[in-house]
Amino acid sequence: MKFQSPPGMRDFYPADQRLQNWLFDHWRAASLAFGCEEYEGPIFEFLDLYTVKSGAEILTQLFHVRHGMSEDAKFAIRPEMTPTLARMIAARANALPRPIKWFTIPRMCRAERQQRGRLREFFQWNVDILGVDDPLADAEVIAVAAEFFRRVGVSAEDVVIRYSHRALAAAVMRSFGLSAEQVEPAFTLIDRLDKLSSADFAKAWSEKFGESSSPDALVEFLKNATLEQAIDRAEAAGGLDGAKGGEAMAMSAASSPAPKADAPAPLTMRESLMRFRQHLVDLGVADYCAFDFRVIRGLAYYTGTIFEAYPRKIASRALLGGGRYDNLTELVGGPRVPGVGFGSGDAPILDFLRDLGKLPETAAAIDVFVIDADERFFTAAMRVASDLRRAGVNAEFSYKRQNLGKQLKQATSRNARKAIIVGEEFEKQGAVVVKHLSDGSQTVVEWEKLRSNANYLR
Amino acid sequence: MKFQSPPGMRDFYPADQRLQNWLFDHWRAASLAFGCEEYEGPIFEFLDLYTVKSGAEILTQLFHVRHGMSEDAKFAIRPEMTPTLARMIAARANALPRPIKWFTIPRMCRAERQQRGRLREFFQWNVDILGVDDPLADAEVIAVAAEFFRRVGVSAEDVVIRYSHRALAAAVMRSFGLSAEQVEPAFTLIDRLDKLSSADFAKAWSEKFGESSSPDALVEFLKNATLEQAIDRAEAAGGLDGAKGGEAMAMSAASSPAPKADAPAPLTMRESLMRFRQHLVDLGVADYCAFDFRVIRGLAYYTGTIFEAYPRKIASRALLGGGRYDNLTELVGGPRVPGVGFGSGDAPILDFLRDLGKLPETAAAIDVFVIDADERFFTAAMRVASDLRRAGVNAEFSYKRQNLGKQLKQATSRNARKAIIVGEEFEKQGAVVVKHLSDGSQTVVEWEKLRSNANYLR
Repeated sequence: MKFQSPPGMRDFYPADQRLQNWLFDHWRAASLAFGCEEYEGPIFEFLDLYTVKSGAEILTQLFHVRHGMSEDAKFAIRPEMTPTLARMIAARANALPRPIKWFTIPRMCRAERQQRGRLREFFQWNVDILGVDDPLADAEVIAVAAEFFRRVGVSAEDVVIRYSHRALAAAVMRSFGLSAEQVEPAFTLIDRLDKLSSADFAKAWSEKFGESSSPDALVEFLKNATLEQAIDRAEAAGGLDGAKGGEAMAMSAASSPAPKADAPAPLTMRESLMRFRQHLVDLGVADYCAFDFRVIRGLAYYTGTIFEAYPRKIASRALLGGGRYDNLTELVGGPRVPGVGFGSGDAPILDFLRDLGKLPETAAAIDVFVIDADERFFTAAMRVASDLRRAGVNAEFSYKRQNLGKQLKQATSRNARKAIIVGEEFEKQGAVVVKHLSDGSQTVVEWEKLRSNANYLR
Repeated sequence: MKFQSPPGMRDFYPADQRLQNWLFDHWRAASLAFGCEEYEGPIFEFLDLYTVKSGAEILTQLFHVRHGMSEDAKFAIRPEMTPTLARMIAARANALPRPIKWFTIPRMCRAERQQRGRLREFFQWNVDILGVDDPLADAEVIAVAAEFFRRVGVSAEDVVIRYSHRALAAAVMRSFGLSAEQVEPAFTLIDRLDKLSSADFAKAWSEKFGESSSPDALVEFLKNATLEQAIDRAEAAGGLDGAKGGEAMAMSAASSPAPKADAPAPLTMRESLMRFRQHLVDLGVADYCAFDFRVIRGLAYYTGTIFEAYPRKIASRALLGGGRYDNLTELVGGPRVPGVGFGSGDAPILDFLRDLGKLPETAAAIDVFVIDADERFFTAAMRVASDLRRAGVNAEFSYKRQNLGKQLKQATSRNARKAIIVGEEFEKQGAVVVKHLSDGSQTVVEWEKLRSNANYLR
């Protein structure tokens, strides 16, 4: 009987885990650079938390969890973090100082159909800024993502963060004659624009919106319009501000609750979008970003800005995706807390960095390998290793008693930076030999002195 | 409709997560000090992986997982890491250089009955050394645990790691007249020795082993015997070496496969145990350790050394527990790979450290808070913050445009170490004011100089 890991789930042997840690460390550092704080939640949640947001169709995409005793599955392993985030924020909405800038690197599972390369378990970096109706928050979450790319050596020539806006896109679509009810199905179709041939796209379009309807003019506009052209067109059609029709997808500021007497007047959509774009410049990430109407984001809960990152030169899944969601905490029974954020999976990012040759060498290394010059010094060698460990130095020694040459070989294969040899000098004068394994040079050092300056060995 | 986290599962708000990270960082650092490498595995495994080791009774203690489409639960969320470890080691037994020194900090779930303080989800530090039949490995895993305690300020006066040995304990029990078949049930009873009154214990004993059987002499010996006395008694009864009877629990070295021609003769149990104890001295952790026959460890898979850590002065659950398991990889279909290791849960450790007053203050802090002296410098302030972030400094600024005093107040409440004020000086001479928030002192510094020496700000 031989056991394997479940299909689509990964084992992380030390070499794999070093790479994961390298990625997580960079995710964490980029988040902390912006003052984001780390949080976490349970690995599974009540099933309802997912159906309330995504409807019953999500049930087939979840791993259901039940207690050993019970028949019914009432829990599901989290397929994304946003419902947990919404639940946690809703529970303390009034106590948390704003802006709420949070990040997390949760493990999650999706019951994907089994096929090669399709993971059922993955880690996803999430960054969210909540509690503020300000395009600055939208620009800052995008800047966190860009800063991560910069830190792992990916320039704006290699990656692009495409952004659009739900309400703006809806207004433009209506200006091409779609009704309020047709906007959502049109989003769903346009989301597949790059995946379908233009003939197939036209066919799917007319099936959905009638024989006489052609998407050509709209698609042409979506592909080429600048942000200013889009705003102009939406305004000219009278559909940009004021959340007309069924979309309810106004820009954050426009849909905020009644302002206080001394609060500034809410921004118009035009002002809000222009500020957002200017903030990308001020935050030094405009070169990483491009307005692109074809960004749709499948999930229905976005209400404003939406964005996705893609490699510029390689065909790939989205490297990250996110947007503004201003109704999510209400959906889980809390007060309204606007928010904007993104998620980014470990597998697409690592694949992308591997393709670019940006993955680091992450050999297991140790500070010091302690060697006995002769078996009778082994006890002393162990004590030296123990003292080093106490002083914050990572130290190992050979389990096998073998000659100095073999121990040195083991030190090299263990990628030790230095070897410390304990022998005659230790007995006679309390000294050890420090050997630098990079160049083979060595010096005799008084052990007590070395021990009290152990930082030098790290 | 208001959602909550599932019963027994924790939300980690940023203050909670900082504490988790503090603990994980110390677990990680203590492991790395000994040259252990980090690994990880899937959150759930095939159910069989758990029943093959623990029998069908474990089914009620597991959270069962099934695919959204299917009826049958064939997976379970991991309730411990050892089966995953055994599976991973078995799959690469011949490729991994030895000793295999691994650690991990996995999330896991157990379907405990719901009651206050009983967690259904927790994190558990695991350290294992595999692939060597050497009491040095047993001593080193214990030394890793002791080093962790030392690093978080817990001395040998506050915690004790009690150790025993399965085969030695079995031989002693048989010397008191128990048959080979009675040894396992006796272990189970003795495991409850501290929880039962002596009358209840005697009653349970006679129910199990017959009216005429009294545990008094055995218990007296278990409570008071030194390691030497135990070995003497077991040897005198002829039951220490050679794995007589059904126990099959000889010390690792004694049960190793046929030695190579040049290999040293296998150690006797006495030699092995004496070396183990001496290694605890050489590794500088003997003061943390005590021989104690009453350590049993419920799980049946241990074959040699067993150990548990307890607070010395406070009644508590075990802070960690482990031992030697030499048959586990065979149980999952692999070749024999001996191993020794322990697990330690986050909740008991944090409770213990809290009781001792050893938990750190972990306020959220940031390196620099950037302030505009006037609204018209806000764009410049954003650019200063962005440049700082690029230089590896964690920096924030106020989302609200408000006066300098209010921004300074925000900087203080955000625990910023320094504030950088961008105002007139910036426009006129490219300079900023650096304010040390600990003492209020401030200096005017050329921004370009500061930027290229940003390390100073971290």
